[in-house]
Amino acid sequence: MSITVVGTMAFDAIETPFDKTDKIIGGSATYVAYAASNLVKPVQQISIVGYDFPETELQSLQQRGVVTDGVVIVPDKKSFFWSGKYHLDMNTRDTLITDLNVLADFDPQVPDSYQDSEYLMLGNLVPAIQQKVIEQFNKRPKLIVMDTMNFWIETAWEDLKKVFTMVDVLLVNDSEARQISGEFSLVKAAKKILKMGPKFLIVKKGEHGALLFNENSVFFAPALPLEDVFDPTGAGDTFAGGFIGHIAKTGNASFENMKTAIIVGSAMASFCVEKFGTQRLKEISINDINSRLKEFVQLVNFDIALV
Amino acid sequence: MSITVVGTMAFDAIETPFDKTDKIIGGSATYVAYAASNLVKPVQQISIVGYDFPETELQSLQQRGVVTDGVVIVPDKKSFFWSGKYHLDMNTRDTLITDLNVLADFDPQVPDSYQDSEYLMLGNLVPAIQQKVIEQFNKRPKLIVMDTMNFWIETAWEDLKKVFTMVDVLLVNDSEARQISGEFSLVKAAKKILKMGPKFLIVKKGEHGALLFNENSVFFAPALPLEDVFDPTGAGDTFAGGFIGHIAKTGNASFENMKTAIIVGSAMASFCVEKFGTQRLKEISINDINSRLKEFVQLVNFDIALV
Repeated sequence: MSITVVGTMAFDAIETPFDKTDKIIGGSATYVAYAASNLVKPVQQISIVGYDFPETELQSLQQRGVVTDGVVIVPDKKSFFWSGKYHLDMNTRDTLITDLNVLADFDPQVPDSYQDSEYLMLGNLVPAIQQKVIEQFNKRPKLIVMDTMNFWIETAWEDLKKVFTMVDVLLVNDSEARQISGEFSLVKAAKKILKMGPKFLIVKKGEHGALLFNENSVFFAPALPLEDVFDPTGAGDTFAGGFIGHIAKTGNASFENMKTAIIVGSAMASFCVEKFGTQRLKEISINDINSRLKEFVQLVNFDIALV
Repeated sequence: MSITVVGTMAFDAIETPFDKTDKIIGGSATYVAYAASNLVKPVQQISIVGYDFPETELQSLQQRGVVTDGVVIVPDKKSFFWSGKYHLDMNTRDTLITDLNVLADFDPQVPDSYQDSEYLMLGNLVPAIQQKVIEQFNKRPKLIVMDTMNFWIETAWEDLKKVFTMVDVLLVNDSEARQISGEFSLVKAAKKILKMGPKFLIVKKGEHGALLFNENSVFFAPALPLEDVFDPTGAGDTFAGGFIGHIAKTGNASFENMKTAIIVGSAMASFCVEKFGTQRLKEISINDINSRLKEFVQLVNFDIALV
């Protein structure tokens, strides 16, 4: 059950109210791969990096069963670089620097060896590029999950709508769901968005958890209440990696199984925010993940007593 | 298993982005009684109203098993009146008018017939008055639940801290929990607050659900995702009524049973917001409540799959 992941592999410099980093490894595809590789092998990356991207970082992923044949290394350009500063609430941030570098030329090619992938995760990218990736598959993957962001809603709306019709699961945050639909109520927003193409919608609400909708049902997963959120960067991508990883591992894309997948994604994300960048994701063991999954059961399980 | 409820019975005039009302019946004790009386009888009210409070409203409560012997009717003064206007997000509101009227003289007396109450719900009131009510019980109730608000945190902090040492469950919203503790993280806030006296802390987060803490555990209950929140007034008090009602009905104040009580409270609150004031709470049947409880099970239940 292989997963193909398309997204950025990059450098981030992050400032929070509590600490700051120099350039560390980031990028949506990086976080997805670290999370998903706990669950399924191979995770097949499609990305682009510059000459400055450390070979050791690619090796670190390869050791986890991540295939990097689809990662293009451009010898005369730098890797994508993003720098941001979080506000005190850790839910909002200001972008300080965006250096596209190699990303400006990103024209992802699906390697032949990836053609059998049953699961496709499209990280947040130019919608036209997301579309091009889907169209390169000779046989449509069983499940396509996509992420996007406000910038594409505002600047590439027609292209984005086209991609919506080609995917199974759309993953957005609450403000993006409201922006796409023009509805404040997330229930109303979901109804409208599900008419645009995706069969499933996941609305991420950060510390307030995540909602899963299909045409008839809704499921809610909380975020684990944490003493400290150290760095939220990559939490959404880590969530996505845990989500698609669980679906791929079980080979079951039903609404019921997506509930569990969202809990798995939430558990992975709860580790991600405990340290800067991918640091915590590199440390955790299967036992750590399982004990956190049990915490989620404790967090939300209750005995029903009808009145 | 009787409950004694102390709080306001009053008039509200409410404006939302979608509609507005003239004076309608409100008050914390009113909402608590409508919710709790679905679960347990008698619910024994302690409140104060003016000559203008409709006799029919008291009768409507009495028909549900609510005892109003402790409701003082002041013949020459008006009832407490509050008017407010909600913002578009329905989470924040501006107070337009606060006419204390009879509430300025509220000196609640616990009737002899209420002395056997095992459960006491202290609505949001002057902390010194909450304390006086507790002290009037010859035998301490088995479980005391209290609500409060930012105004008392700011103006009667020493009195409030004293009441914290006398109760079992403190019920506040997220901003109040942060204000009381000086901590942004709700997990850290809960740790501090639980050292101030209450054995249990419930943090209400409006549309984002509610958290229950004790020294060792945490439980999360979502709010039901609704297409429309028509009027949030009284939702917190309705939640409290459902919560203490379930505890009283089952006679079990364990953490595990409080989880279910919070779901019951959330289900009751989800009805409250569907219409203005107490209107929806007056309409609903036990069947309605049970089918909503089942919706909550669907909303949060998942199969755990360890990795």
